[in-house]
Amino acid sequence: MEKIIIGIDPGTNLMGYAILKVNDKTPSLMAMGVIKLNKFEDHYMRLHRIYDRVLALVEQYIPDEMAIEAPFFGKNVQSMLKLGRSQGVAMAAAMARQVPITEYEPRSIKMAITGNGAASKEQVREMLRRILNIPQSSLDDLEMDATDALAAALCHHYESSRPLKKAGASSWKDFARKNPDRIKGR
Amino acid sequence: MEKIIIGIDPGTNLMGYAILKVNDKTPSLMAMGVIKLNKFEDHYMRLHRIYDRVLALVEQYIPDEMAIEAPFFGKNVQSMLKLGRSQGVAMAAAMARQVPITEYEPRSIKMAITGNGAASKEQVREMLRRILNIPQSSLDDLEMDATDALAAALCHHYESSRPLKKAGASSWKDFARKNPDRIKGR
Repeated sequence: MEKIIIGIDPGTNLMGYAILKVNDKTPSLMAMGVIKLNKFEDHYMRLHRIYDRVLALVEQYIPDEMAIEAPFFGKNVQSMLKLGRSQGVAMAAAMARQVPITEYEPRSIKMAITGNGAASKEQVREMLRRILNIPQSSLDDLEMDATDALAAALCHHYESSRPLKKAGASSWKDFARKNPDRIKGR
Repeated sequence: MEKIIIGIDPGTNLMGYAILKVNDKTPSLMAMGVIKLNKFEDHYMRLHRIYDRVLALVEQYIPDEMAIEAPFFGKNVQSMLKLGRSQGVAMAAAMARQVPITEYEPRSIKMAITGNGAASKEQVREMLRRILNIPQSSLDDLEMDATDALAAALCHHYESSRPLKKAGASSWKDFARKNPDRIKGR
């Protein structure tokens, strides 16, 4: 059985994404990268860019599920409002194509990948490289946001293949399954 | 010349909406109401509900523009993240159908409708009733979120018909006009 997971690390300057393929429980990397937003001064253009690019990724790879890195705390209310908007439009792009979303706090992702919830981004990247056999050269000039997104996708694979779901990972997958008439096809 | 403006007041429990028709500079109310979200415990279901309902309104009324009430400050970072997500999915529903968005702070809306940026919601509603000749009976049991959304729409009509745009109201309408190739049709 094959499953495709899209991982998203939403930000206001860069948005990381990764496409993870899981074939018979074996995960492999299909694609990853970043959506650059800092070239747009206007906040709306950034949001529009996120929506368009995430929708394009969803339409290209047709993922079964989306995993999103979602910090629940931040520096100040203004930055959290902006982050919430970025998350919202990325989620809407998944909702527009009926892709269920699960979110994970950064700490849970680090724990799932490295066994240490306080691991550095570099440690997470190194573990991803080993687990998924990623050539070092393809990581050299890559923004951390891309591997953060990949870590979210791999974390979701681990969590969703466990017999009991970890508490704290909320999902509307069950909702979609129980209420097929409420999910509109577009 | 006829123009249709959809006003949105996004919240996490209730989302107000209003459809304002402007015919030869004369505004009139087409529809208003609230999208009830508090019956869903799950945050994702609420976001999905917002996306679906706002998209349905956009498809039903085919508005030329969206005006959104957007406070920039709030109590705490968690509530601002949730508010940002609600705003994000509502905005994405407009972006999905190429409807330009303009946001207004509550104070600017109150100022535009009543001439007083510190007016109460009741004062705003009373002015809306008079300006748009709304029967009192249709307002009696209506949540304030609906008239807040209507106020945003009417504020946008006033602001966009002024010769000089008020500073602070950002818009990606100009962006859409200047970059038609960047706006995807879906």
